Amino acid sequence: MSKVVGNRAAPIPLKQVSITRGFWGERQSVNRAVTIPAIYRKLEETGRIESWSMGGPAVPPPSHQRIGVRVFWDSDSGKWLESVAYSLATHPDAELQALADDLIDAIAGAQRDDGYLNTYFPVHFPEGEWANLRDNHEMYNAGHLLEAAVAYAQATGKRKMLDVLIRFTDHIAATFGTEDGKRRGYGGHPEIELALVKLYRETGEKRFLDLASYLIDERGQAPHYYDQESVQRGEQPEDYWARTYRYCQAHLPLREHTEANGHSVRACYLYAGIADVALETGDDELLRLSRLLWDDLTRHQMYVHGGVGPSHHNEGFTFAYDMPTETAYCETCAAIALAFWAHRMFHLDPDSRYIDVMELAIYNSSLSGLSHSGDEFFYANPLAAYPGVNPQGRWHENMEDGHYRRTPWFHCPCCPPNISRLIASIGEYAYSQAGARVYVQMYHDNAVTLDVGGGEIRLVQETQYPWDGSVRISVESTGTVAFEMALRIPDWCYDCQLSVNGEAQAAPAERGYAILSREWNDGDTIELTLAMPVERVMPHPSIRQTAGQIALQRGPLVYCLEEVDNGPRLANVCIPETSELDVSFDSELFGGASVITGEALRIEPAEESAALYRHQSRAGYNEAAFSFKAIPYYLWANRAPGEMRVWLRSC
Amino acid sequence: MSKVVGNRAAPIPLKQVSITRGFWGERQSVNRAVTIPAIYRKLEETGRIESWSMGGPAVPPPSHQRIGVRVFWDSDSGKWLESVAYSLATHPDAELQALADDLIDAIAGAQRDDGYLNTYFPVHFPEGEWANLRDNHEMYNAGHLLEAAVAYAQATGKRKMLDVLIRFTDHIAATFGTEDGKRRGYGGHPEIELALVKLYRETGEKRFLDLASYLIDERGQAPHYYDQESVQRGEQPEDYWARTYRYCQAHLPLREHTEANGHSVRACYLYAGIADVALETGDDELLRLSRLLWDDLTRHQMYVHGGVGPSHHNEGFTFAYDMPTETAYCETCAAIALAFWAHRMFHLDPDSRYIDVMELAIYNSSLSGLSHSGDEFFYANPLAAYPGVNPQGRWHENMEDGHYRRTPWFHCPCCPPNISRLIASIGEYAYSQAGARVYVQMYHDNAVTLDVGGGEIRLVQETQYPWDGSVRISVESTGTVAFEMALRIPDWCYDCQLSVNGEAQAAPAERGYAILSREWNDGDTIELTLAMPVERVMPHPSIRQTAGQIALQRGPLVYCLEEVDNGPRLANVCIPETSELDVSFDSELFGGASVITGEALRIEPAEESAALYRHQSRAGYNEAAFSFKAIPYYLWANRAPGEMRVWLRSC
Repeated sequence: MSKVVGNRAAPIPLKQVSITRGFWGERQSVNRAVTIPAIYRKLEETGRIESWSMGGPAVPPPSHQRIGVRVFWDSDSGKWLESVAYSLATHPDAELQALADDLIDAIAGAQRDDGYLNTYFPVHFPEGEWANLRDNHEMYNAGHLLEAAVAYAQATGKRKMLDVLIRFTDHIAATFGTEDGKRRGYGGHPEIELALVKLYRETGEKRFLDLASYLIDERGQAPHYYDQESVQRGEQPEDYWARTYRYCQAHLPLREHTEANGHSVRACYLYAGIADVALETGDDELLRLSRLLWDDLTRHQMYVHGGVGPSHHNEGFTFAYDMPTETAYCETCAAIALAFWAHRMFHLDPDSRYIDVMELAIYNSSLSGLSHSGDEFFYANPLAAYPGVNPQGRWHENMEDGHYRRTPWFHCPCCPPNISRLIASIGEYAYSQAGARVYVQMYHDNAVTLDVGGGEIRLVQETQYPWDGSVRISVESTGTVAFEMALRIPDWCYDCQLSVNGEAQAAPAERGYAILSREWNDGDTIELTLAMPVERVMPHPSIRQTAGQIALQRGPLVYCLEEVDNGPRLANVCIPETSELDVSFDSELFGGASVITGEALRIEPAEESAALYRHQSRAGYNEAAFSFKAIPYYLWANRAPGEMRVWLRSC
Repeated sequence: MSKVVGNRAAPIPLKQVSITRGFWGERQSVNRAVTIPAIYRKLEETGRIESWSMGGPAVPPPSHQRIGVRVFWDSDSGKWLESVAYSLATHPDAELQALADDLIDAIAGAQRDDGYLNTYFPVHFPEGEWANLRDNHEMYNAGHLLEAAVAYAQATGKRKMLDVLIRFTDHIAATFGTEDGKRRGYGGHPEIELALVKLYRETGEKRFLDLASYLIDERGQAPHYYDQESVQRGEQPEDYWARTYRYCQAHLPLREHTEANGHSVRACYLYAGIADVALETGDDELLRLSRLLWDDLTRHQMYVHGGVGPSHHNEGFTFAYDMPTETAYCETCAAIALAFWAHRMFHLDPDSRYIDVMELAIYNSSLSGLSHSGDEFFYANPLAAYPGVNPQGRWHENMEDGHYRRTPWFHCPCCPPNISRLIASIGEYAYSQAGARVYVQMYHDNAVTLDVGGGEIRLVQETQYPWDGSVRISVESTGTVAFEMALRIPDWCYDCQLSVNGEAQAAPAERGYAILSREWNDGDTIELTLAMPVERVMPHPSIRQTAGQIALQRGPLVYCLEEVDNGPRLANVCIPETSELDVSFDSELFGGASVITGEALRIEPAEESAALYRHQSRAGYNEAAFSFKAIPYYLWANRAPGEMRVWLRSC
């Protein structure tokens, strides 16, 4: 049962939320049957599992400057274990648990007596240990292993991994800090901050929260730790390959930051950790900072599909309103990290606007990271794609023969276990509770058990969401229980109907929630109907790349056109403002999905010509009407390769 | 006087074309007064002049893999000398000539007894000599010095530099070739090929043409020379930093190429050399190849302003119809090299279509490389620019504080002396002659003296071109001379009027020229009026980046909108199809330029909002009409920094 601390909002734990069917039932079933085993096979094939046996000779690293992805292998094991833990929490599986236990045994065996835990440095580069916090991801690995350890203990009750990670955390706390004899370091890739708060919540041990606070307070302070450790390595700080500490959000002390900066996954994990610490410490400055960064990111730097980080160059942020479509990076991990941050922002500052962004990022730019089959992944999630892009000119991990294709693995495979753990834990994002108020955050088929108003109740949610906006919530209770239901009215919804036991309710709205405050009895039924018309989304007038274009959104889903449905040259397709946009459920499309159809125009020169440019005075246009078909963005690139566009010309 | 070989077309030499006023008179005067001295100062400041004294110790290079720009310093001196030579050819200047003579003395003094000439390898890295033709630019330097030597001999009659370069060329020919004991190498950065043909034409020595032919025939042959020399350096060929020999047009034997590939400056210099060799040897296969590459480039890979090479990544070509605007590279040198190639294509295959491209590249993406003041330069010439672009995310040499700004010099300063030599030699592109036919290629204020039809005549051209399409050409002759005037009718012109001595002429058209065949007498006057309306240019329907947009062109000039004239957020500006586009001469604008004005709409949301995205069902658009002003593209970024766009939304 969840521990409800006063009236502070907290998520209702995963274990209490049962998902067996519907949209997420299907995705979780694929995650268990396909994704989790596929990732484990890759961990094995690539030597990551074996690496925990700490074999092999000490060899100098390829370069002291950039050691490469080998230094964060450990995090891949961690994220896989975390996904397994979430899955076991609601879907016990003895075989899977045995596999995880074996890996945990190996991890425990790899731990040094002093608590240090890392498969790379002790074996291959001993003098590199804690020598380059800026680049070498030791704390990042610790954070991911820590998240797995907490999740595994919560799911299975087994504490072996948690104990290992507590020893490692204590080693870190003994090495880094402001006290005499400690080094004032912090990791270049934030992540451990939020993990430490999870550990604090699980154990109640304040020292873990203190370590998280230290890491946040120390970040970017002068004299700069990364300068100092560079000099100690015999390097010039200015030779930093990423050129600026903005890249890792360490260019200024965090409380002086005014905008989301740098590598977007690092940024969003860090901001999530800040929100966690703010929540636990009640530090108003961190609350102010969190809101400032949130507003900057969501008002200036977020894509329509919830993706963040437009640039491949720094895998991150550039500047306000810079939203290239075809070259958008929008790493899957960044969307997931944004959802994590959003979830924490709600609990820090209960308002549905955070959950709106969380839902957007989950249903679109996170979920697009996984193939429908469950065993292929996207790293980047662009808003337009064209075949024929020359990999020489534009390269990244998902480019093959000029096509964006999901692939079974990456050189840097951070995204696959990340989307897997998000799907496995999706139930945790469904409900929050603050005293006698139950927030319904996400609508999907599920059942939740909770303590509220002095009794234990069960809520059963039935809905076709996101395909349909009708939601039915039934109360199961042994007696009468007084509590508030706070039903999220999503930002995309302008018309909602609410009834209890068939009686229309004029529920007061509070920060984006319709509040139903009453005494509930067994069998009470809430019916919520969220009108879900197709919306034409307009970009902010400062977004130069999509001026004059619209995106199609219905409910939480952003749609796209693919060549396989609409033919090539999608740049020439215009959606007339007068086109009626129809929604239908295509049961053939990946087990069923709502698609949008309507009349579009394909505007091309009236006559074929080899000429690259023609004068309008000599050549006219032909406007050919056709019926277009848009599918949910997250489903793109599951069929024949070809063009894809989210933003469409409007005429 | 020009040597006319049979009926083969050849340019009328620079010395015979006098330019004293008008568009090019002004640009040449700035070149002499500002650009040539400014570049010399930079050559001095950066040590390039001093480098010819061959001082300093031998030190290992920073990296054997990529030695950096130091290896092509010599070419910068070469191009400056070449520009000086062209300037002296028509505008003698004893002081400038003395400065050039001093540099030539230093160059002569730097030559080794065996003819080898290079300021880097003998002094700093002796074992690197000819060890890495793929990267190290020794032949490229030789080519630029050779072009300078030929130009200097032609301009001044002084042969010292020419003799030095002939010795260097003979050293190269003794080192590389198919004969026993020679290495089958060729330069990674083509350029020497066209220079060798210049040397052949100047000296009549066939061995120089043979060397050019060898370099073209050997390029890309298997076993691959660059593989072999890599292995000899102890490197793996597959570790080539550019990843593919496409980068340097050496992935296949040249005769098997089917499209323009790789680094665009290398490509266009090479293609110019191929055309030169084809012309001199009559090799039909090279003619076929030249036409094939030309058609590929101009039908698939050329920007509307004549720029080529969209990608910063490889400084070159990507794939057909890939025309990003804001991130377009379009190096100044590439546009100049395209103009060189176009000029040669005409003489190989006399047709105005080549000169149309030459003129487009010269007036737009070449000339934009130079500031109006003459002392600042662009490296990249994009088709759209926005302030605020974060240099962290998008970097190149012209980016400063997120603005595209011309700068006085570059780390790799190939462009400044290149635009200088083009301007200094512009007269050479004005006329060609084939037997008794005189081609008028470019219209501008000038006077040319030539031998034709058995007599010496002078043609005086008076025009406000490119601001106006009226051209008057007067014949000065001591007697009656029979010859053909072939007046180029540019591809952008649909309506031209032609008269001789006031009498309208129905001149037959031949491959883009109006042919006036008659006996000419002193005082005969040709009046040509090329209608020069503003044209809305449509992109090919496969160019996705500019679909639904138009560019404005008038005569040879492509126009752009700048923020300083039109306010910010140019992406929201639409030009209605019904807008009348007016032309006026703005005498205040940089000494006078024709500008285009008309009514445009700025389409933005009707209400201000901080929201990044809004639903059209809740928010409308406001269409605010305003009078826009477009200026010639080549003049952009000479006033207040801000946005710029060539492609404009059409509505």
